[in-house]
Amino acid sequence: MIVYGKNVARELLENDQKITKAYIYDKFDDKKTINLLRKQNVTLEFCSKKELDTIAKGKHQGIILSIPDYDFVPLEELLENVTDKSFIILLDHLEDPHNLGAIIRTCEAAGVDGVIIPKNRSVGINSTVMKVSAGALSNIKVCSITNLSNAIKKLKDKGFWIIGTEMDASHSYMDIDYNMPICLIIGNEGFGMSRIVSEACDYTVSIPMHGKINSLNASVAAGIIIYGVLEKRRK
Amino acid sequence: MIVYGKNVARELLENDQKITKAYIYDKFDDKKTINLLRKQNVTLEFCSKKELDTIAKGKHQGIILSIPDYDFVPLEELLENVTDKSFIILLDHLEDPHNLGAIIRTCEAAGVDGVIIPKNRSVGINSTVMKVSAGALSNIKVCSITNLSNAIKKLKDKGFWIIGTEMDASHSYMDIDYNMPICLIIGNEGFGMSRIVSEACDYTVSIPMHGKINSLNASVAAGIIIYGVLEKRRK
Repeated sequence: MIVYGKNVARELLENDQKITKAYIYDKFDDKKTINLLRKQNVTLEFCSKKELDTIAKGKHQGIILSIPDYDFVPLEELLENVTDKSFIILLDHLEDPHNLGAIIRTCEAAGVDGVIIPKNRSVGINSTVMKVSAGALSNIKVCSITNLSNAIKKLKDKGFWIIGTEMDASHSYMDIDYNMPICLIIGNEGFGMSRIVSEACDYTVSIPMHGKINSLNASVAAGIIIYGVLEKRRK
Repeated sequence: MIVYGKNVARELLENDQKITKAYIYDKFDDKKTINLLRKQNVTLEFCSKKELDTIAKGKHQGIILSIPDYDFVPLEELLENVTDKSFIILLDHLEDPHNLGAIIRTCEAAGVDGVIIPKNRSVGINSTVMKVSAGALSNIKVCSITNLSNAIKKLKDKGFWIIGTEMDASHSYMDIDYNMPICLIIGNEGFGMSRIVSEACDYTVSIPMHGKINSLNASVAAGIIIYGVLEKRRK
């Protein structure tokens, strides 16, 4: 996988993540990063701006890294040592890599145990997600699964309560007791949760709305509910 | 100002916002939108995809609208009828239009009274903000000011408490009583609040972090605290 940008590079290096090769702008002036790459025996290739532009489509800031593809964890690993504080996020076919990246970042900061994403018809872990997640990917377990229904069944068997999110749910997200193992589901940006997932929920919750347009960005909505759960559990 | 995209068009039309002219792909198939534009006497110009690509740099989805520049409200208007539930957000030099758009969207949904943004060295209301805010801009007061310190002074004179946000603040955002007029400050994505703004705060609050990377996207952080304020006020 190709990732790029100074922040991404710095975070990969700080987290000792494996870097296979670095393509660096021949006028790149961040000596510290170059030295760190050398120290980790990364093969360096100095390139012109034009060459870098061909390798990465986005704003590479003069540094592009080739890293091994993201290592997903098996679902079973997320289901070990379940407690009343267990907290898993399941993303029901998100489309926008910025949302996925921001949600992974939030999950890491909130101490969420893991994130489940569908393998098909969903954004996966690409370089935009890597960049937006600002290094959080190295510190959170992400599980990629083929069949959401099966995964939800396994979660339920392990004692997880499935909490869906819906615009018109009858419970506010702050009116539920979250002192139990929970799996929070965030739906697709445009269509919300899929029918089959929605039907599997034990509860659905909504965020109270006080405006006229009343729509929230998916990663903002996820952040509000995730921190709401932490707050309710603190009491 | 040029804005584009099907959702943006639909929301402008639903909110009866003034549209000066519409550039439409000659194979555009959304008859309903075209009829609504005709009903509002908007001048239509049918164009090739290539012509549309020249007018808008982003994903226009076959529809580009020319609308009057955003109408900022004067600060004084935000300072009328102050109550213990008054809630203003001040953005201290945000850079990313996606963050600004998502924050405006959150403010609208949360019923925030208004948003203050600096005129200089800050992202302003452009077409990306318009698009990301998903129509929320038509329903929220945004005020653009030259001097943040003066604005904060005026807010204080009107009885507002200035609540800053900082990674290492001593108060958690849920440990403050928000039953008073408050102005919440969200800092720059990279550098946080500027010194002069930080010094003017009555309190600073942070979001509890439980990971290793521990950084949140600015619009996610804003959403968490804004909804935290609503939750605290509900009690």
